[in-house]
Amino acid sequence: MQLVGMLDSPYVRRVAVSLRLLDLPFEHLPLSVFGTFEAFGRINPVVKAPTLVADDGSVLMNSSLILQWVATLSQRSLRPLGGPALQRDLRITGLALAACEKAVQLVYERNLRPAERQHAPWTERVSGQLRAACALLEAELGQAPLPAPAQEITDAGVTTAVAWGFMQMMVADTVHAADHPLLAAYAQQAERLPAFAACPAR
Amino acid sequence: MQLVGMLDSPYVRRVAVSLRLLDLPFEHLPLSVFGTFEAFGRINPVVKAPTLVADDGSVLMNSSLILQWVATLSQRSLRPLGGPALQRDLRITGLALAACEKAVQLVYERNLRPAERQHAPWTERVSGQLRAACALLEAELGQAPLPAPAQEITDAGVTTAVAWGFMQMMVADTVHAADHPLLAAYAQQAERLPAFAACPAR
Repeated sequence: MQLVGMLDSPYVRRVAVSLRLLDLPFEHLPLSVFGTFEAFGRINPVVKAPTLVADDGSVLMNSSLILQWVATLSQRSLRPLGGPALQRDLRITGLALAACEKAVQLVYERNLRPAERQHAPWTERVSGQLRAACALLEAELGQAPLPAPAQEITDAGVTTAVAWGFMQMMVADTVHAADHPLLAAYAQQAERLPAFAACPAR
Repeated sequence: MQLVGMLDSPYVRRVAVSLRLLDLPFEHLPLSVFGTFEAFGRINPVVKAPTLVADDGSVLMNSSLILQWVATLSQRSLRPLGGPALQRDLRITGLALAACEKAVQLVYERNLRPAERQHAPWTERVSGQLRAACALLEAELGQAPLPAPAQEITDAGVTTAVAWGFMQMMVADTVHAADHPLLAAYAQQAERLPAFAACPAR
């Protein structure tokens, strides 16, 4: 099994950390969807990170779908089985993925086009959505803690911690750590796990 | 259960069609993330379509995560249980979601900013990725058919047909129907199902 993509992508890192928590061995190919577009395209012509090359050579993409596939290969599950625990896990994962999406849109707007092609209404819209997602994540952690130990952490915890690390690396001017003490503390706990430490974002 | 968002979004339509195939009753609130941003934000401050308000009031977002939740509420499953059938379903779903993402990025670039803020390298990059995803989907359908009957269709079929309809509605100048006869024929079959007909994109 090969995981293709760089760990500075929160979606790639979400899968990499999850594979380690699931005890599934994989080869990591840290190709960039920008700097090594051609090489990436030879593996997956859509050039989407993460890409997973399964043991039979089949090529999967989209972190949530990849996680559905690898879940069938492991004894350990990163998702509660059902009921309110599953619902909360999916709600928090959805908030964390929305935060990643909005942060990536902000980074792309700032880094992939010259200043005169940047569009302030878009930047403002996306920044507001990003802040809303983070405020709701902070509120969720205030209502009930998320498990952080390696044997108990779920997709919600992995995705939240990965999202937080990405945001603090890339858009810390928009999402302030001081406004999100619970998120910052949770991510700090998670980053101490061997599965996270083995997959540094940079 | 309430589904919030307009059916011209392929992600909203994916969930709406799936809920009908799963025989799960829901109320549809066709709010726009643009024209009714404020009203949408009162339900979900992140303003992400689709948003699902569960029966207990919990708010979920992200079509793939919403489908994981509603899967627990129905006897019928839209995903093969495991093995090669599941792997292929996830591969095709990933390609269809990538096509949706690239088509949406193209539409946003064209429609949400004035011509002088549009960035040709971005448009070209995204158009190429979109065409690559469609070529791979066409090739998948050439290798083996996707089931289309209501009792047999899976998430891969729903998402592929919804993606195709969205692309033909919004970016038909970039993805030509004549180059994708199998995709066009499959989508035409799927659109005849009552679950699709009940959820028109416009």
